[in-house]
Amino acid sequence: MYGTAVAVFLVILVAALQGSGPPESPFPYRVPLDPEGSLELSWNVSYTQEMVYFQLLVRELKAGVLFGMSNRGELENADLVVLWTDGDSAYFGDAWSDEQGRIHLDSQQDYQLLQARRTPDGLCLLFKRPFGTCDPKDYLIEDGTVHLVYGVLEEPFGSLEAINTSGLQIGLQRVQLLKPNISIPALPSDLRSMEIRAPDVLIPGKKTTYWCHVTELPDGFSRHHIVMAFYYPEEAGLAFGGAGSSRFLRLEVHYHNPLEIQGRRDSSGIRLYYTATLRRFDAGIMELGLVYTPLMAIPPQETAFVLTGYCTDKCTQMALPPSGIHIFASQLHTHLTGRKVVTVLARNGQEKEIVNRDDHYSPHFQEIRMLKKVVSVQPGDVLITSCTYDTGDRDLATVGGFGILEEMCVNYVHYYPRTQLELCKSAVDAGFLRKYFHTVNRFNAEEVCTCQQASVPEQFASVPWNSFSRDMLKAVYGFAPISVHCNKSTAVRFPGEWDLQPLPKITSKLDEPTPRCPASRGQSPTSPTVVSIGGSRS
Amino acid sequence: MYGTAVAVFLVILVAALQGSGPPESPFPYRVPLDPEGSLELSWNVSYTQEMVYFQLLVRELKAGVLFGMSNRGELENADLVVLWTDGDSAYFGDAWSDEQGRIHLDSQQDYQLLQARRTPDGLCLLFKRPFGTCDPKDYLIEDGTVHLVYGVLEEPFGSLEAINTSGLQIGLQRVQLLKPNISIPALPSDLRSMEIRAPDVLIPGKKTTYWCHVTELPDGFSRHHIVMAFYYPEEAGLAFGGAGSSRFLRLEVHYHNPLEIQGRRDSSGIRLYYTATLRRFDAGIMELGLVYTPLMAIPPQETAFVLTGYCTDKCTQMALPPSGIHIFASQLHTHLTGRKVVTVLARNGQEKEIVNRDDHYSPHFQEIRMLKKVVSVQPGDVLITSCTYDTGDRDLATVGGFGILEEMCVNYVHYYPRTQLELCKSAVDAGFLRKYFHTVNRFNAEEVCTCQQASVPEQFASVPWNSFSRDMLKAVYGFAPISVHCNKSTAVRFPGEWDLQPLPKITSKLDEPTPRCPASRGQSPTSPTVVSIGGSRS
Repeated sequence: MYGTAVAVFLVILVAALQGSGPPESPFPYRVPLDPEGSLELSWNVSYTQEMVYFQLLVRELKAGVLFGMSNRGELENADLVVLWTDGDSAYFGDAWSDEQGRIHLDSQQDYQLLQARRTPDGLCLLFKRPFGTCDPKDYLIEDGTVHLVYGVLEEPFGSLEAINTSGLQIGLQRVQLLKPNISIPALPSDLRSMEIRAPDVLIPGKKTTYWCHVTELPDGFSRHHIVMAFYYPEEAGLAFGGAGSSRFLRLEVHYHNPLEIQGRRDSSGIRLYYTATLRRFDAGIMELGLVYTPLMAIPPQETAFVLTGYCTDKCTQMALPPSGIHIFASQLHTHLTGRKVVTVLARNGQEKEIVNRDDHYSPHFQEIRMLKKVVSVQPGDVLITSCTYDTGDRDLATVGGFGILEEMCVNYVHYYPRTQLELCKSAVDAGFLRKYFHTVNRFNAEEVCTCQQASVPEQFASVPWNSFSRDMLKAVYGFAPISVHCNKSTAVRFPGEWDLQPLPKITSKLDEPTPRCPASRGQSPTSPTVVSIGGSRS
Repeated sequence: MYGTAVAVFLVILVAALQGSGPPESPFPYRVPLDPEGSLELSWNVSYTQEMVYFQLLVRELKAGVLFGMSNRGELENADLVVLWTDGDSAYFGDAWSDEQGRIHLDSQQDYQLLQARRTPDGLCLLFKRPFGTCDPKDYLIEDGTVHLVYGVLEEPFGSLEAINTSGLQIGLQRVQLLKPNISIPALPSDLRSMEIRAPDVLIPGKKTTYWCHVTELPDGFSRHHIVMAFYYPEEAGLAFGGAGSSRFLRLEVHYHNPLEIQGRRDSSGIRLYYTATLRRFDAGIMELGLVYTPLMAIPPQETAFVLTGYCTDKCTQMALPPSGIHIFASQLHTHLTGRKVVTVLARNGQEKEIVNRDDHYSPHFQEIRMLKKVVSVQPGDVLITSCTYDTGDRDLATVGGFGILEEMCVNYVHYYPRTQLELCKSAVDAGFLRKYFHTVNRFNAEEVCTCQQASVPEQFASVPWNSFSRDMLKAVYGFAPISVHCNKSTAVRFPGEWDLQPLPKITSKLDEPTPRCPASRGQSPTSPTVVSIGGSRS
């Protein structure tokens, strides 16, 4: 039995050395899993193989370790690899956890151990997994946020099923696992950097503070291009300084202080890398999604309620240059109940392309992400941004707004060449929402406050939330005309009629991507691998 | 290559003889596939193996044959077995057809050939397939209607992909493949039969005729039990004759004459098997579902619109005996746009059990089906009947009613002991539907006719069908109070208030059944089997 298992292991190892190894630099991405960094994950992505190569460093191995992925970082319904010992041998197996967190061996072993070796830093496990496995128990590795989960086994277990996850040290880490496969642009030789920091600010003792700090550029500071906050494409940079441009830089820090703690101080900030060697195009930032208004609201106790904001054909027709713009990066943004965000580009009523999508979005993990592929937007195109919210733990409607307990649905897209269009968003027409409140009143015995004095949040607060008021709100948001904010950077609208605009008609949708099943599927082992971790090399 | 394939075939054959053969009488169910009966299918079901055993008789083999299943009998997106020849050898393979009807070999061969032999009647193919295969290209064999498809290959093809389905003689046949596994009850020795026929009726030259013919029982005909129209359970029979019972039998024939042909005559009828040896219980028939009323309507251009009728707790509380009733058979009924029908039993707000379900329902294949398991209904239970309609080819709303172009949603359940409750159905409250028409008016520029004189069908005909009017209709049907018909066989309601009743609240739903993947999955061959069909036995 032991002999057979070792043989299997060696075959896998040889196969790994015969060319299916990770491409280029072995593991360019790295993140600590636990706060102490005792578990450290490095990884690489092969898009041709549709495979992720993982290297898990376990600094102080106790009796084993769990690692895996789950929808939002929970250890229930997770897709796991487990390294465990029964006291005699050590095993490596592909496993899954059920709704109660009980662990089971997977009938199909899709995580493949490539190497296990002792290093001066600890035990180093090298393994790989396809993006999709077609095993219904397995997690599908997609673009966007991935919630990694881990657990430390302190003692031997006779079997996987015997592992009691409630007694383990566990945790989660959020990463973008499928980093885009783009090469780092060449940086100019005259690269300089500048730091803008909050000047030891006393954080106010209230829940939400948007704190602004203005600094001034030196006298006579000429036009420069910022090329690295993240990496800008070689042909574009974010302009600042010089004639016709503001001499002031505004740093805006959003403080979330839920416990309303007094007396805390902060010096957060940002470091800009810039060059005097101007690039071909100025880059710009445009805000897509929903207007910050209580007109857009989410009923309470909804686990997947969708709100959608539109950048209409009329606005892109008016504001974009004839050759269009090119989006190369995107930052998705919601407040606490946001769970998914997607922006889709539509042309002539047909969905054409995903601009950015995160089906495992977390408001606690917001980053500017380079797009895998630059998306070109032409005049007349429509950009549709949809956010999915979970208000399962709320008792009142969640309305749109600036407060952390209100909601947003925003995609900040980074693009070039820069245009005057800074904000292209929408909200439902206020008159149609009034009709909604009236209709809910007609259909319910209870009185909803529809008096003129009542604010929209007050009206939402008095809606009796039943199947009708919920379905009807969805129907109104999916039908009523919208008010479009097609704004210049000076916060004024482009000229034209922007109220009571029809919702863009979409006649054909993009197909949901169907994951490719790995070709080697039938050949994967169906039992765990015995691992030798005694020596310096297995 | 030929040697290997034959070896594979022999191994399968031996395995089949070693105990995995079909249980009991080899093939109790039989149906011709084509109108001429040149293809004949016999089958048997093993519920312990979750396997169907098929015997396909090809009376005059040309160059091959296709057989399989698809959602509604189309040859696109079908799950197929193909017997074909390239001129030299004959092959048997598990295949699937894509949206264009092109045929591809399945990567996983789930149909297993057990035997191929020449008989005096023709070529006889014996093969088996699990109910579910977990192959996303495969059809899931479920309870209810299965649409079988077939095709005759007239000439050799070099490969499966080369088969041009548009040039074949093809067709479909509807069957209930998963016949319930119940033994035939013992029949009484004094079994007699009686025929009631339409007396050579001249069929009227109009689309829909409900034709009634009344015959009289002989003078002094005592109380008897009908025990076989289909087989009644041993403890129950349908009573007729005797004191306190009508001496008249009414035969009702529904003629559908879409071309309004004149001069056709008909003598259709029914044969009753009955006994004077009365059984313990009288059986009864109860009608569940929707009231025949235009208040319940389906918008045009909907591919899966659901209407639901309720038999409420209040009605079952009032009308059922304390020990409840036992449903043993069911006949689902809709008109032309019906695609699915299901009745669910709920108790204390929780769905408990499926009474009958057909996810591939066809209005062209209506039969009384014995339930696999008798369903007991207690006083206070709720019976929820939902029908799914496809009005994709209609331009106006389809309203409820008797006409063939109107719709119904009915489940006739056969049960014992007989009660006074003959009909337990519902429809939306008419006042709330008026509010619906008013609201659609408020939200649309176009005027919907909501004048008092207009009938409900006229009002539905003037609704502008957009996302709002569609979503809102669903919301109203899912929320508004209902009018309940809780009627005795005399067509009068049970005493009590039956209007403006609340919709039953369902707090927990039944899980969708997840098909079991066959255990032998990884071991099935991935290439077609070479078949020897030259001799009298392969």
